[in-house]
Amino acid sequence: MRRTSLRGAVCPLARSLDEIGDWWTLMIVRDALRGARRFSEFEKSLGLAKNILAQRLRQLIANGIMELRPAADGGARSEYHLTEKGRRLQLVLVALRQWGADNLFGTGEEISVMVETATGQPIGQLKLVAEDGRPLGLDEVSVVRRTAGRAAT
Amino acid sequence: MRRTSLRGAVCPLARSLDEIGDWWTLMIVRDALRGARRFSEFEKSLGLAKNILAQRLRQLIANGIMELRPAADGGARSEYHLTEKGRRLQLVLVALRQWGADNLFGTGEEISVMVETATGQPIGQLKLVAEDGRPLGLDEVSVVRRTAGRAAT
Repeated sequence: MRRTSLRGAVCPLARSLDEIGDWWTLMIVRDALRGARRFSEFEKSLGLAKNILAQRLRQLIANGIMELRPAADGGARSEYHLTEKGRRLQLVLVALRQWGADNLFGTGEEISVMVETATGQPIGQLKLVAEDGRPLGLDEVSVVRRTAGRAAT
Repeated sequence: MRRTSLRGAVCPLARSLDEIGDWWTLMIVRDALRGARRFSEFEKSLGLAKNILAQRLRQLIANGIMELRPAADGGARSEYHLTEKGRRLQLVLVALRQWGADNLFGTGEEISVMVETATGQPIGQLKLVAEDGRPLGLDEVSVVRRTAGRAAT
């Protein structure tokens, strides 16, 4: 990826891809959303080499997606926590998860499913909607240039 | 990325990341959703080297995300079209776009915004919802293992 060309891009998709850097970022965020806090927990879950994982975590901290905090149990090792900016990546993870579930699994395969904790029911599909909540088809949208601010969301 | 370990993963996020491969895939899908069809259009938009772009397009076809069709104008060169599986990636792009717009732009910066074509109004934010449409907070969900099929969506 040519990082410099995407970091200042007008397209927020391009900037997001530049900021996230590579897929391991989203796997680390996934584990953090599930409650992983310690270096050893991420290492065990992801099977990444220590030096690669350390580099990814440093980058996530530099980008404000994660932050180091003192260990909750008073131990010597700091913990990795998601910032608000990092927690907001959950919708990206859900979109990828739902696309994968719909397109990459055969009937009868074991799959991890996101459920509403209180009911145990699978969550609903993400939907493209207008500002007032009306459902929109994939062909009913287009992309225009604006100046960032209130209108940019 | 260790491709073999993710392709058979129980987690659909991991499989999606494996299938998409790298960020350029999503930039190519973005351009295709905007109407790009010819090799030269993708090349010009993305500034990728010809051999890299050709490899990415081959992979997208192998994965069933794009397909080759005869040129609409009867010309000699085939066109690249998204399949239904590829078109469904739009929600992933929208999720990344909205996260980028909310977290990576300063006020006053130029930004591309997705709008409802008919009204010119920015689309609504994607929302986490229960199966019956109730909004869910990021902390109200968890992940469980199931067998793929009707319950896996």
